[in-house]
Amino acid sequence: MHDNNASKIIGCDNSYEESRIVVFGAPFDGTVSYRPGARFGSSAVRSESYSIETYSPYQDRDLEDIRVFDAGDLELPLGNTVKVLEIIEEYAYRILNDGKIPFMIGGEHLVSLGAVRAAVKKYKDLHIIHFDAHSDLRDEYLGESLSHATVMRRCWELVGDRRIFQFGIRSGSREEIYWGKDHVYTSFFDFSRLDGVVEALKGKPVYLTIDLDVLDTSVFPGTGTPEAGGVTFSELLDAVGKVSCLDIVALDMTELSPPLDPSGASTVLACKLLREVLLYVYK
Amino acid sequence: MHDNNASKIIGCDNSYEESRIVVFGAPFDGTVSYRPGARFGSSAVRSESYSIETYSPYQDRDLEDIRVFDAGDLELPLGNTVKVLEIIEEYAYRILNDGKIPFMIGGEHLVSLGAVRAAVKKYKDLHIIHFDAHSDLRDEYLGESLSHATVMRRCWELVGDRRIFQFGIRSGSREEIYWGKDHVYTSFFDFSRLDGVVEALKGKPVYLTIDLDVLDTSVFPGTGTPEAGGVTFSELLDAVGKVSCLDIVALDMTELSPPLDPSGASTVLACKLLREVLLYVYK
Amino acid sequence: MHDNNASKIIGCDNSYEESRIVVFGAPFDGTVSYRPGARFGSSAVRSESYSIETYSPYQDRDLEDIRVFDAGDLELPLGNTVKVLEIIEEYAYRILNDGKIPFMIGGEHLVSLGAVRAAVKKYKDLHIIHFDAHSDLRDEYLGESLSHATVMRRCWELVGDRRIFQFGIRSGSREEIYWGKDHVYTSFFDFSRLDGVVEALKGKPVYLTIDLDVLDTSVFPGTGTPEAGGVTFSELLDAVGKVSCLDIVALDMTELSPPLDPSGASTVLACKLLREVLLYVYK
Amino acid sequence: MHDNNASKIIGCDNSYEESRIVVFGAPFDGTVSYRPGARFGSSAVRSESYSIETYSPYQDRDLEDIRVFDAGDLELPLGNTVKVLEIIEEYAYRILNDGKIPFMIGGEHLVSLGAVRAAVKKYKDLHIIHFDAHSDLRDEYLGESLSHATVMRRCWELVGDRRIFQFGIRSGSREEIYWGKDHVYTSFFDFSRLDGVVEALKGKPVYLTIDLDVLDTSVFPGTGTPEAGGVTFSELLDAVGKVSCLDIVALDMTELSPPLDPSGASTVLACKLLREVLLYVYK
Amino acid sequence: MHDNNASKIIGCDNSYEESRIVVFGAPFDGTVSYRPGARFGSSAVRSESYSIETYSPYQDRDLEDIRVFDAGDLELPLGNTVKVLEIIEEYAYRILNDGKIPFMIGGEHLVSLGAVRAAVKKYKDLHIIHFDAHSDLRDEYLGESLSHATVMRRCWELVGDRRIFQFGIRSGSREEIYWGKDHVYTSFFDFSRLDGVVEALKGKPVYLTIDLDVLDTSVFPGTGTPEAGGVTFSELLDAVGKVSCLDIVALDMTELSPPLDPSGASTVLACKLLREVLLYVYK
Amino acid sequence: MHDNNASKIIGCDNSYEESRIVVFGAPFDGTVSYRPGARFGSSAVRSESYSIETYSPYQDRDLEDIRVFDAGDLELPLGNTVKVLEIIEEYAYRILNDGKIPFMIGGEHLVSLGAVRAAVKKYKDLHIIHFDAHSDLRDEYLGESLSHATVMRRCWELVGDRRIFQFGIRSGSREEIYWGKDHVYTSFFDFSRLDGVVEALKGKPVYLTIDLDVLDTSVFPGTGTPEAGGVTFSELLDAVGKVSCLDIVALDMTELSPPLDPSGASTVLACKLLREVLLYVYK
Repeated sequence: MHDNNASKIIGCDNSYEESRIVVFGAPFDGTVSYRPGARFGSSAVRSESYSIETYSPYQDRDLEDIRVFDAGDLELPLGNTVKVLEIIEEYAYRILNDGKIPFMIGGEHLVSLGAVRAAVKKYKDLHIIHFDAHSDLRDEYLGESLSHATVMRRCWELVGDRRIFQFGIRSGSREEIYWGKDHVYTSFFDFSRLDGVVEALKGKPVYLTIDLDVLDTSVFPGTGTPEAGGVTFSELLDAVGKVSCLDIVALDMTELSPPLDPSGASTVLACKLLREVLLYVYK
Repeated sequence: MHDNNASKIIGCDNSYEESRIVVFGAPFDGTVSYRPGARFGSSAVRSESYSIETYSPYQDRDLEDIRVFDAGDLELPLGNTVKVLEIIEEYAYRILNDGKIPFMIGGEHLVSLGAVRAAVKKYKDLHIIHFDAHSDLRDEYLGESLSHATVMRRCWELVGDRRIFQFGIRSGSREEIYWGKDHVYTSFFDFSRLDGVVEALKGKPVYLTIDLDVLDTSVFPGTGTPEAGGVTFSELLDAVGKVSCLDIVALDMTELSPPLDPSGASTVLACKLLREVLLYVYK
Repeated sequence: MHDNNASKIIGCDNSYEESRIVVFGAPFDGTVSYRPGARFGSSAVRSESYSIETYSPYQDRDLEDIRVFDAGDLELPLGNTVKVLEIIEEYAYRILNDGKIPFMIGGEHLVSLGAVRAAVKKYKDLHIIHFDAHSDLRDEYLGESLSHATVMRRCWELVGDRRIFQFGIRSGSREEIYWGKDHVYTSFFDFSRLDGVVEALKGKPVYLTIDLDVLDTSVFPGTGTPEAGGVTFSELLDAVGKVSCLDIVALDMTELSPPLDPSGASTVLACKLLREVLLYVYK
Repeated sequence: MHDNNASKIIGCDNSYEESRIVVFGAPFDGTVSYRPGARFGSSAVRSESYSIETYSPYQDRDLEDIRVFDAGDLELPLGNTVKVLEIIEEYAYRILNDGKIPFMIGGEHLVSLGAVRAAVKKYKDLHIIHFDAHSDLRDEYLGESLSHATVMRRCWELVGDRRIFQFGIRSGSREEIYWGKDHVYTSFFDFSRLDGVVEALKGKPVYLTIDLDVLDTSVFPGTGTPEAGGVTFSELLDAVGKVSCLDIVALDMTELSPPLDPSGASTVLACKLLREVLLYVYK
Repeated sequence: MHDNNASKIIGCDNSYEESRIVVFGAPFDGTVSYRPGARFGSSAVRSESYSIETYSPYQDRDLEDIRVFDAGDLELPLGNTVKVLEIIEEYAYRILNDGKIPFMIGGEHLVSLGAVRAAVKKYKDLHIIHFDAHSDLRDEYLGESLSHATVMRRCWELVGDRRIFQFGIRSGSREEIYWGKDHVYTSFFDFSRLDGVVEALKGKPVYLTIDLDVLDTSVFPGTGTPEAGGVTFSELLDAVGKVSCLDIVALDMTELSPPLDPSGASTVLACKLLREVLLYVYK
Repeated sequence: MHDNNASKIIGCDNSYEESRIVVFGAPFDGTVSYRPGARFGSSAVRSESYSIETYSPYQDRDLEDIRVFDAGDLELPLGNTVKVLEIIEEYAYRILNDGKIPFMIGGEHLVSLGAVRAAVKKYKDLHIIHFDAHSDLRDEYLGESLSHATVMRRCWELVGDRRIFQFGIRSGSREEIYWGKDHVYTSFFDFSRLDGVVEALKGKPVYLTIDLDVLDTSVFPGTGTPEAGGVTFSELLDAVGKVSCLDIVALDMTELSPPLDPSGASTVLACKLLREVLLYVYK
């Protein structure tokens, strides 16, 4: 019979107790009006992860060397966004409270709000590093305040001015982009100014949120709102490497949408990126 | 240039004022955890309707002979189920209040609840004829009371015992099926006992809700929860014909899921059924 | 190495000279505005035919017992409909002139016009048996006189009143259906009155044109304009069997659209039907 | 977190020890040259089974009432057919030896050979009831003796003349069909003569093998070699019901091919059939 | 209800009269023998445009700042290439005559011929800048003079020697490439020599035709004849920016093929490119 | 009628006798457990090759200038890996023995073993240049010694230490990567050290094996185990150009998987690469 651990992400089959990072899925895409599917992101990562190796030739390290637990997917009530965020917050807080690092796999980007709420409860001085094609700073979207397009605005309400650092941004309404100039730090198109930000954030608690559409559409077409002109896989890997010297207290990776990935290549890329992030962040 | 009315369902391009039936879309599938896509049902019907004729050889009538207005899709806030139902109720009530018949195109089956609320507000003595593969009589589903799997239970709370008449049912939990025996009228698998029900409902205000998965999966694979062993297209057409002699005050057709219809044949069938239902119900 | 004859339809690898039936493809769908793809029908039949057997348990006969030549696909200039029909007519006439039966695989239904022109040149008294969901009797479609929706009207201009016998029809504009009542024989929905027609056509030269959308959409979803409420595979087989006692001088099978057949089942069905028709018609 | 048993087929989460039927997957399609994918059949049934209910309105029974264990998928070495069959035989024999009924989910039809070998080892007088579109009686296929097209010939070598009873057959080479007339019992196209066979097999140990392509292609397009003209879901259900009064000592269900099932409807049908067969066979 | 302007490309909802650029679709792919689908390009751009923003962070400008009218799709008779080009020419000429800039969205590349005919009628001294992977300079293709593979040859007949400037070319027959050396200016593979051409064309009326397959297949797989080794999105954007200082009197963007874009990413890219081109060209 | 040579790869329609390179397909993917489909690679290349030109603007040469024969696909018994490799070895050896260069199109990468066996039989001093994302140096995979994941280890057993030169490698288990350090030459991620290797191999007989997944997933998603971070098309072309100055005695190109290439762009790229490799290698 197949290994029972096949229901865990590859290499993430340690116990909760012994693990320093806890991965969990947040299968929610309830506010995505246009091209849904991100709800299947975490389960696709879980099953497809067996097509990659646990060993990284980039870092010459192996998932077998570290202690990670895959807690599976949260059971989220689709159609009830408020409750979805509460469930995420509660579980992420439990992990933080146990002295571990929560690593959430989306789901749409709004799920980050639940985990950021948990992180800010524990770390008053929380800073957020945000890799994304979209600034997500709207105050409302289609009349709703809780949306994938408003998530960083909601996070800003929690952490305050100049605590959010965005990279790779190449899409937004004029209004939100202009608002952002006064309230967050935005680096358009690429990571060119990441070094300075990393320097400035040394010693601070950092939440890292990676919306996978920061990648160029050629590299990662399997997402709901693909934006041409993005970063390459190597550039993203390099950026994660730089950020990993900071004190990452929680993190997430969102917006893989398997139904929009007919070749499967975006899903496999997400698995590989997950491995690299885990190896980078784990200390 | 193409006809501007191409943004209307074929043959439904009369004005609101002159029309007796008002068709509108309810593009919502927020409670569908498993295989979403019904949110695209109404817009697919709208654009694909141009592949069928306005003339029915079954009834020797033409959509050009009747007055129907296609109001387009409601703008619904995904992720906020409560508000979605309020918007539907409000719009359906406006149509009813104007002395017209609302014909809603889903969307998932839960949208029926909004329209039933409107109908019951106007017609205290409302009865419901329900064509479906699933009894949808659960009290809760995944902890939520508002769900595609609970919609007829919620409707029952509005209309009371023995006012719901189900046909074609072939799936349900044991608990809900047994509960149904005491509270609704259920005809399993087919329409064999429809004649008697039609006889009994003469003169009563009737809401007709057609979950398209009442059709056999061979006939209609493009739906979220296909159930083998269903009725044929001819049987459904025949059943609608019988029901149309009643006083239909409002109606809907739900659960077409275009992403699950790669050949497009289910979508075209839904368009054709819509034409036949319009011609039958219009008096 | 694979058999060189793999580029022939299975069992149709005899020489032109020794064959009594000549199969050829007409890969054209130039007038199909809505859901193109029928141009790939004949080549799909050719390659997928190797998934069926040459033996028919229905007739207890084998393609190995008869002499059929597959001439491959005609090279047709897409975008030049007039020339396309000329090329078809010329090739079909050559086959007829050599005392053989042309069996054309479409392509969209308009290709039948080319072959009917050839047949009517040789057989002044030609009659047409037409299996289809659509009456195709429009005089114009989108301003064009040469269209898949006008093909039988053009054929009527060649053979005259009461020489076309339609079966399975269940779609048309009111105008064309009413026009048809005066000029052609139309049997709606099924083959119920086929026996009488066969009796009446004994001894006449007959062209048999099968638009595969005569089949129900459950049986044959892989076509450009699927119409629910059609005939079953057994009913179609039975009808072909009855017709085969007539003097079929030419025939065709059109409107398989492989891009609309993601499961591949419609293509395999077309291959099987082709085998049965060949075995029935060959004498 | 989601229920850990989500990695079991719905309702098959009892322990091995307490269960009377043991379901297991045989994810192999190594001899399928044409349209592979059956290897994914068992895992698709496992995950999609959560879209159906455990309760059967056909039998008014529930999977919760019976004791079934889902052992998961066997780990099979693709590319090594001989070893694949050995592994299947070994596991099926272990189940039989423990006094339980093995129920194998394919995979391609050849996997049945492994389980039949196990059954014939325990039951010398084994008879086989075989539902299929194809007779599978070839002696060789593409030069190989172990193939999905030869599986019943290999089984015949184990059980001997007149011990195999085929139903629904509608495809085969002339040679194998004629060979079959002397060695097996074949009922073409349907189940019309099933009653007599059931009567005759009372008291004998029976292996039931269901190749899902016995179903009509409209009902079950998601399979490698779809054959038009098959049985309906109701007919198959009825046939299983009749057979279930016999002493079924082992059984299987094969040839669901998820990649050929883009709408997902064939997979859901297989899940529903599995439930009905379990409820019928369990005593 | 949804905004009625949803049937316009986002941000292109001004009136014809007040607009300086008129966008229109030319849904034609009648000469594409191999992989059709470009006919759906313009309508896909129209509906998918709502997934991007009207604001460009590249240019810090917004579609709201400019005046563009989307006239919808021309109604083109598929199967009649000559008439298709006449309709395009007529409409483009009307726009030019009204002192506006026509911006045509294909459709296959042949549609450019219609618009170039209109432009050359108004501007005798017309020059053409041509971004493409293919030189499209054949005299005939499959026996036809009007084809996507001959379009620039036909344009050359209108404008004469050395008036066509091609960039990004990486495919052609030897014959057409060699012919081109004597009659047009061809820059292979990239835009490296664009600056000089822009300099030379200052003050001349320029038609800009962008065949989207000039982009690398990684960036833009959703097209009929993808060619590896193309330019990046940034390079194309940069090239458009340079060209926009010229006197662009008419332009087009062709060869998006939505059926070949299963992830949807190519369609979204085309929308984004359209926004950038509009903002660049509008003065 | 279409040219009979359409069943040959474009430009490869010379006779066996006059040709210097013989292309043949090895349609096998029997050991691919995860995402099969490579078995369809060679036939897809054959039919899609007609969408590219025979002329290369990169090399200013044309396939018409050289003599290549396409022998079609080998008939391989799926499910019998040992025999598959024997058939490949036998055919490749026949070509080598006739003084020609075999160029095999896969199929999965394991097919290379058959051709390497043939080459090493003729050239005792054989060296292998290996372009791939994966090192394929495992000793066993899922208990089998013959696997796509072990193919280079099996080749190493034939040619010995330091005779295999790998480029582009970015995935492997720690064990195989470490083993490789002692036995083969591995250049990770790119071709940066190719010049030195080419220099060193001057005068030696070289087998060139190109696993197409060496390309970045953005460039070539249509493969079973896509790996982000790969080389571009230009880099691969450049590398092939460099290698072509060596004495290439046999070569292959593997792992195109058409079912994983829904846009078709990967298949077209493989055709174009095939053309370039043929023109480079032919002397």
